[in-house]
Amino acid sequence: MRDVAVIGVGQIQVSEHWERPLREMAVDASLRAVIDGNVDIKDIDLLVVGNMLGEVTDTQAHLGALIAEALGLKNVEAYRVEAACGSGAAAFRTAYMAVAGGFSDLALVVGVEQQTNAFFTDITLGLAMAADGEYEILHGASFLALNALLKRLYMERYKDVKEEELAVFPVIAHENAVNNMYAMYRFPINVEKVLRSPYVAEPIRLFETAPISDGAAAVLLAPAEIAKKYTDTPVIIKASEVATDKIYLAGREDILLPAAIRVSTEKALKRAKVERKDIDFFELHDAYSIMAALSLEASGFAEPGKAPKMAADGAYYLNGDLPILTMGGLKARGHPVGATGVYQIVESVIQLRGDAGKNQVDGAEIGMAQNVGGVATTVITTILKRGD
Amino acid sequence: MRDVAVIGVGQIQVSEHWERPLREMAVDASLRAVIDGNVDIKDIDLLVVGNMLGEVTDTQAHLGALIAEALGLKNVEAYRVEAACGSGAAAFRTAYMAVAGGFSDLALVVGVEQQTNAFFTDITLGLAMAADGEYEILHGASFLALNALLKRLYMERYKDVKEEELAVFPVIAHENAVNNMYAMYRFPINVEKVLRSPYVAEPIRLFETAPISDGAAAVLLAPAEIAKKYTDTPVIIKASEVATDKIYLAGREDILLPAAIRVSTEKALKRAKVERKDIDFFELHDAYSIMAALSLEASGFAEPGKAPKMAADGAYYLNGDLPILTMGGLKARGHPVGATGVYQIVESVIQLRGDAGKNQVDGAEIGMAQNVGGVATTVITTILKRGD
Repeated sequence: MRDVAVIGVGQIQVSEHWERPLREMAVDASLRAVIDGNVDIKDIDLLVVGNMLGEVTDTQAHLGALIAEALGLKNVEAYRVEAACGSGAAAFRTAYMAVAGGFSDLALVVGVEQQTNAFFTDITLGLAMAADGEYEILHGASFLALNALLKRLYMERYKDVKEEELAVFPVIAHENAVNNMYAMYRFPINVEKVLRSPYVAEPIRLFETAPISDGAAAVLLAPAEIAKKYTDTPVIIKASEVATDKIYLAGREDILLPAAIRVSTEKALKRAKVERKDIDFFELHDAYSIMAALSLEASGFAEPGKAPKMAADGAYYLNGDLPILTMGGLKARGHPVGATGVYQIVESVIQLRGDAGKNQVDGAEIGMAQNVGGVATTVITTILKRGD
Repeated sequence: MRDVAVIGVGQIQVSEHWERPLREMAVDASLRAVIDGNVDIKDIDLLVVGNMLGEVTDTQAHLGALIAEALGLKNVEAYRVEAACGSGAAAFRTAYMAVAGGFSDLALVVGVEQQTNAFFTDITLGLAMAADGEYEILHGASFLALNALLKRLYMERYKDVKEEELAVFPVIAHENAVNNMYAMYRFPINVEKVLRSPYVAEPIRLFETAPISDGAAAVLLAPAEIAKKYTDTPVIIKASEVATDKIYLAGREDILLPAAIRVSTEKALKRAKVERKDIDFFELHDAYSIMAALSLEASGFAEPGKAPKMAADGAYYLNGDLPILTMGGLKARGHPVGATGVYQIVESVIQLRGDAGKNQVDGAEIGMAQNVGGVATTVITTILKRGD
């Protein structure tokens, strides 16, 4: 198994791209990665697409071949990987294994999702397909409602947690999105604004939820030993580890300490041979602010029930102990579901290159990205390190 | 990169399983593979699911985690791979790379599809998602209709090809299905019956098409060096190679010699270091009888326009030069789309173990399976060899 580097990244602004077909967004992000990586597009020998909802939103499966063709990649190996909202990082994981194992010398991973041009009811049902159709969704739960159950239980168990502390997560996200030209919501908010926003599924409020949005992000992977051929600033993949949990929440041991988050993080730290204190920033999956807290706690960066307090105390801002959501996270950069995991990796690479501008995490050497499918059902944790 | 062996296989009968949920079929086939492979199910460290239509037929995405949970695989790495009707072999390909690269020591691949419990119109639209939604399907073509265009052009270009020669492919399939207890149609047919069956999309007749059907098949992969721990009859994966073509037919150089079939076959033969004459049988993708002819011709086993004549002359029966569809193929074993590629590999393994009973290909040492997504858009060619 050989070391693998990210040698090119590309992204388009997350937005409501009513007018842009799925494949066109994928091509746009991919070509930006090709230019950034200084590669000859003809040298790409593997394309892995991360996408969740193509069948639902675009009446289109078979995105591997579809996007390969649109990119002009002649007869290339291509397919789609799907793990609900974790599809992006799951696609990254398989491409990483292909390069590490010697099956590919230049792999393109593109995450893409087009949600806004489908009917709202279709999207609600589509996102619910991440949960257990027979045991959960048929009984009336939406995906949002399942997350609301988590928040309710969380507030019940940890009685000293305050709503205004949990509301800091979206505040951090929006603050960091201001300087990210690819973010959907480039304006700051404050705790009062979050707390005054209406419930969308009590006790989750509108400003605690990531938006339905469209976007595409892409990365190019190559063997680390030849990465310098393409770029002066390769970023090395130290780990990309997947774990799953029981898909229906009722079956879990403790839904507030999701096992998939814990196991995926532990596997990744072990594979990367680093400790939590070595992680300079953490791109986590804040689809809802409760998920930000659970990710920090189950990943071992905060004691159970303590992440909101730490957020309120400033630990997760750019100048804090562990910056999170450094480019806006799902809440403010946006959450085009199957693309999100790739956006997280693109943003991590930009941080590790030192190219994050006003959002640069000082001296960032090692970053962690965590993409989640379902209610912490499939979790992919990626650890990246600045190359020498 | 290390050698990888198939150490266990499992399948359920392809049929109209109205009463069986998708996950239940996947579990059934997987447990059969676990028993066949003599493994402790807890040792499985990777699950890759091949499925095309879960969102359409079962309102269910996220099948990796869903099936992992149903199998009791605690916190296992899991996701779904999709390449339309080629999803099964694409899933196999990614699991193969994971084991070869040292990321997995015991991987389970399960292909599963539940088609019959969806509305017929949904299935027609679902299968059309394998083609180009914007350039082909929106204009009224069904997937069947696109294949009918191929047959029409084929009969036009190769004027000496007779309908009764092409009709031999389904005859071979049905003859071989009689002894396969897992096949959907276990009865023989003859050329007259094919030619008297009604057109479903002229010039394709009903008995030239694979049925809408349900099923699941599974294989277990392990490093070849430890395969003997599990089984006396490991089967070695010599190659699993993917190629794609332009998804919309109008863009191709020659739609009767699909480049993805040619390139995938050539890559596989090269990787496996074998020649066509070394292949003892060929499990090809006869979704329509025209596809059987195109597969043989583009793969280089027959001259363009000559495969139907060779079929009529007996070349592809079990006792012919190159047996095909040895357990019934898509036409008679059935074609649960995302499972088909795994069925082909299961059947190939049974042949190479010498366990094919009345359908045994004498002295079978090397077999080839070819799974196709779309109209020869994504093609995965797998070459398997009997272990020592």
